Amino acid sequence: MAEFTVTPWEVKGEVDYDKLIKQFGVEKINDANLNAIKKHAGEVHFMLRRKVFFCHRDLNWLLSEYEKGNKFYIYTGRAPSGNVHIGHLLPWVFTKWLQDKFGAELLFQFPDEEKFLFKEGLTFDDTSHYLQENMLDVIALGFDPKKTKFLVDTRHASTMYREACKVAKRITVSTVKSSFGLSDQSNLGEVFYTAMQAVPAFLPSVLAGKNIPCLIPHAIDQDPHFRITRDVLPKLGYYKPASIQCMFLPPLTGSSGKMSASDETTAIYTTDAPEVAAKKINKYAFSGGQATIEEHRKNGGNPDIDVSFQWLRMMFEPDDKKLQKIYDDYKSGAMLTGELKQILIEKMMMFLKEHQRKREQAKNKSEKFMFKQ
Amino acid sequence: MAEFTVTPWEVKGEVDYDKLIKQFGVEKINDANLNAIKKHAGEVHFMLRRKVFFCHRDLNWLLSEYEKGNKFYIYTGRAPSGNVHIGHLLPWVFTKWLQDKFGAELLFQFPDEEKFLFKEGLTFDDTSHYLQENMLDVIALGFDPKKTKFLVDTRHASTMYREACKVAKRITVSTVKSSFGLSDQSNLGEVFYTAMQAVPAFLPSVLAGKNIPCLIPHAIDQDPHFRITRDVLPKLGYYKPASIQCMFLPPLTGSSGKMSASDETTAIYTTDAPEVAAKKINKYAFSGGQATIEEHRKNGGNPDIDVSFQWLRMMFEPDDKKLQKIYDDYKSGAMLTGELKQILIEKMMMFLKEHQRKREQAKNKSEKFMFKQ
Repeated sequence: MAEFTVTPWEVKGEVDYDKLIKQFGVEKINDANLNAIKKHAGEVHFMLRRKVFFCHRDLNWLLSEYEKGNKFYIYTGRAPSGNVHIGHLLPWVFTKWLQDKFGAELLFQFPDEEKFLFKEGLTFDDTSHYLQENMLDVIALGFDPKKTKFLVDTRHASTMYREACKVAKRITVSTVKSSFGLSDQSNLGEVFYTAMQAVPAFLPSVLAGKNIPCLIPHAIDQDPHFRITRDVLPKLGYYKPASIQCMFLPPLTGSSGKMSASDETTAIYTTDAPEVAAKKINKYAFSGGQATIEEHRKNGGNPDIDVSFQWLRMMFEPDDKKLQKIYDDYKSGAMLTGELKQILIEKMMMFLKEHQRKREQAKNKSEKFMFKQ
Repeated sequence: MAEFTVTPWEVKGEVDYDKLIKQFGVEKINDANLNAIKKHAGEVHFMLRRKVFFCHRDLNWLLSEYEKGNKFYIYTGRAPSGNVHIGHLLPWVFTKWLQDKFGAELLFQFPDEEKFLFKEGLTFDDTSHYLQENMLDVIALGFDPKKTKFLVDTRHASTMYREACKVAKRITVSTVKSSFGLSDQSNLGEVFYTAMQAVPAFLPSVLAGKNIPCLIPHAIDQDPHFRITRDVLPKLGYYKPASIQCMFLPPLTGSSGKMSASDETTAIYTTDAPEVAAKKINKYAFSGGQATIEEHRKNGGNPDIDVSFQWLRMMFEPDDKKLQKIYDDYKSGAMLTGELKQILIEKMMMFLKEHQRKREQAKNKSEKFMFKQ
């Protein structure tokens, strides 16, 4: 059986998501959840229908509070340490939908110390650069500037550090060792860090002087942080944050691990020229097709392992009918790998052009989104 | 042989300072040091002459830099967790002298998270209260408001946390376990804390964009923090801070351990009414006298273990001749314990009256001293 690892610092091997659900103790998203969301949102996002967002914690509680008029806010984030790639955008696209449909405030954390602490060569000059760049990508997705606040750990530490200490006082070294695989050789910042990641899950409640429900959409690898957060917050008098977890958009080169921001061949960056992205897809996208056209026509391809199809399914083709037709055509052999790639390439090029246009417009707008401490 | 413990969190037993010098690896202050100080200060503070400040690190280097025109700043501090007592004031009185004589800037840290993290029942409401109170005591000592800045960890975290992370990245959990006796059951904040205590030792250099020598006057129990700081700072491109260490003013009740802010019988607080202080000295001050007046007249007392005499020597009688006369008279039996106590009481009452007057004037002045981030 294939081994896999999913921690906030590493995703390795072919992830068995069912196994992860058991291991992490999250709940699978079911039809009742989808119906409850539809009731309020008026629709169900395709990432939910297709179980790209596949599990959750306390979603029922969150929605029942919402029904009672107790609105939630959303918390998600990005540790700036490199350029943003398409895989990073996936949960943010969904987060934007949540904001729109539920009229929710969004606290977007940029823990600029995290990767500094965990990566040997990375400096704060590096993280500052990527922070500026990464904020443009977030803004470009169209979050409501009136309802979205950026929280930058080092910049907003005068607000955050005291709250982080309250959390840190309730977590032992032993807990972070077992939750994150840290050791006596880990540095002090690595050990402390999870306390900072907990803060946005209750900071609005601190500031409002009353409990406000929180929903955290995030990729499943961050769950160990929020498991600890959920343990601690009730001890401080706050709600446990609800959360909803997505899978990783597979790397271009295949379905193992997650896309790496540091490996050009596995990722398409938001700043890649559309033509470059097209070339990457043509050159690297792992194919579920057969070795020859004849064989492909005869036996058909396998969309389930084909990265181009998976990217369409998870991110770029919201229309179920169109997706189904692509699936069927590819599986039957009527559609060749080159044709399938072409569909993704067109979607991707269109997306990148638009994103890059908005990214350009986002320049000098970051301060508008900044949390005021 | 008597056992003793000296850590930043605990001082227990009768401290053997010579042993501590070896254990900590600090250098004893010698005549050459005193002469070097005298050369620049014009005099030698009685706490130096009497070796109340008894050891140091890199004092020679600091003074030779000073001689070259490379001025140092001073860093000391107070973790707000209770009322200030006379023992706390001792190093600050010396610090004020240093500031005056060397025209030095002073960074006074109030690590308001420290005791919060280390004491089970203590809240941030408590530390906020004590912070306000403790600042009054510091201001009352007469530090130059133009040259003195208060640095409050949680308030100034937007300046400090990023720098603390740089330090934290260079310290392993293993190191703080062995330096402070922390364990896997310690909380994350306790483990991280020493990184915050390191920050004022190089923050002015960060802000100035050039290396500025730093001198830390402190009670010897804080040395484990600064040993680590000294290991790390050169790796970040900064000078090792120099330091100068004092002994603990003995508790009223005897020469074991240090004065406890939480035990009324061992301490005199800066807010004690002068009459209350007088009563405490009469009632609790451990005496080196004999059991009866006759015996005392005959055999004399022992000023070396007499707390009243030690307080005069360490803090309240700067005049060497007067002190010597008290010593001789008490030792010979010419001076009775009651008379010795009366000398301390008069000094103490005068000091408290004056301190409390200045403390009253200090109200609403804290913001003037506040570091601007």
